[in-house]
Amino acid sequence: MTAAEVRVWAPDGIPEVHEDDDLAALLVAAVGDLEAGDIVVVSSKVVSKAEGRQVVAEDREQAITDETVRVVAVREQPGGGITRIVENRLGIVGAAAGVDASNVAPGTVLLLPLDPDASAARLRTALMLAAGVPVGVVVTDTLGRPWRHGQTDIAIGVAGVAPVDDLRGQPDSTGRPMGVTIVAVADEIASMADLVKGKAENRPVAVVRGLGHHVLDIDGPGARSIVRLGESDMFRQGSAEAYADGYSDGYSEATKETGDVADAPVDGGAW
Amino acid sequence: MTAAEVRVWAPDGIPEVHEDDDLAALLVAAVGDLEAGDIVVVSSKVVSKAEGRQVVAEDREQAITDETVRVVAVREQPGGGITRIVENRLGIVGAAAGVDASNVAPGTVLLLPLDPDASAARLRTALMLAAGVPVGVVVTDTLGRPWRHGQTDIAIGVAGVAPVDDLRGQPDSTGRPMGVTIVAVADEIASMADLVKGKAENRPVAVVRGLGHHVLDIDGPGARSIVRLGESDMFRQGSAEAYADGYSDGYSEATKETGDVADAPVDGGAW
Repeated sequence: MTAAEVRVWAPDGIPEVHEDDDLAALLVAAVGDLEAGDIVVVSSKVVSKAEGRQVVAEDREQAITDETVRVVAVREQPGGGITRIVENRLGIVGAAAGVDASNVAPGTVLLLPLDPDASAARLRTALMLAAGVPVGVVVTDTLGRPWRHGQTDIAIGVAGVAPVDDLRGQPDSTGRPMGVTIVAVADEIASMADLVKGKAENRPVAVVRGLGHHVLDIDGPGARSIVRLGESDMFRQGSAEAYADGYSDGYSEATKETGDVADAPVDGGAW
Repeated sequence: MTAAEVRVWAPDGIPEVHEDDDLAALLVAAVGDLEAGDIVVVSSKVVSKAEGRQVVAEDREQAITDETVRVVAVREQPGGGITRIVENRLGIVGAAAGVDASNVAPGTVLLLPLDPDASAARLRTALMLAAGVPVGVVVTDTLGRPWRHGQTDIAIGVAGVAPVDDLRGQPDSTGRPMGVTIVAVADEIASMADLVKGKAENRPVAVVRGLGHHVLDIDGPGARSIVRLGESDMFRQGSAEAYADGYSDGYSEATKETGDVADAPVDGGAW
């Protein structure tokens, strides 16, 4: 099912958020009267700030290391500096593990919320109790992608919204079953909201009206369910890292067969 | 700059499109009165159909091979069948090279438009002449992503819209320059439109109103400019493919050093 019209707007009136601020109360005040099926989209930045995830860190690189579960790819940039693509605690693969040094006080960095699905669920409860109708919440972050320039917002926390819309098996317009289409609804909602929220201004919240058919009457599986890791991940390592591992293993195998002592590095990793 | 409110809707009234139909005229009739700064988002499927890109192909796999410029990764699926991630003629990396077997007549497949940026530019001209105001056009396709379940719509053809919004160097809300943020505007517009267009219904077009600050008074660089290939592509090969290449090269190097004849496959590829 699709929507005839969707409206999305970014209310102003959200002040600078600090640790222990009641973010839910700030949201309730800013979004005004919600209707059933509305979806409130919130930048993770303000969720993190309210949850006290701003930490002192003169060394952003160390903060990234601390937040990293697994390194996927590392590259030196032409202009200096290093880009690290890593899997973070949430299973999200992206640059810098979500460690953010913009829009924060000098000498500090902002980490992602500890559990953005739980944050979204708490905000959903508060917004529903205030509005008296079912609504959804999406918490967003900004990520780059392979093969495409530019960054898009994705959903890192979801409550009350179906993260995907699985159309597999449904008939297409010719009556034949559709192929593999699973619409990444929550990520598309995050991208939609990014176009009105903006990054430089103090408008970290958007309201989406008209997608009520994607709104659930429970918190639902959350953004964690959209993460694709393990066997179905064809890009578990960057090409250079996987090549280096293969080279090392091939070299070792050949020298083992010929009786030579393998002197290639056996861990083979580039990091 | 951001928008206070954005509206997006999917007009009905687009009939089934056939080869040599005047798609621009169909769009003009369906979208009604456009305002300056409106963006018309069109599924590549109807562009392809109008441009006669539906071809007889009992063998979808052969059609994919024909459209492939470079193989990135290949995997057998647990349920049978093979997924091929490839770079297509347009520089876009995705599954199946954009070859579409849904919503088309049995025994045929639909290929992507030959030059979606040019298609978008032609549609832009027709829409502007009818409306008498500057508008933008985005032509979309549906793609999967690494590391995330579900598919999103992206921009494969763009005219009259800035494909990205480069915020690097602009001050954040604390006055410090922002980091690496380049907003993938055209892709986010494609995703936004997907939420109202739907895939199973005959609503392949959406109108976005409220993003006029991203609309250009020229066709602009198009979607081709968003493609990231070459040196800055850390995922030029799937992990398994890169590992296999490395293994082969390492094996060969070791046997060369020890005087053995290398008998490992030197091309090393999995395909």
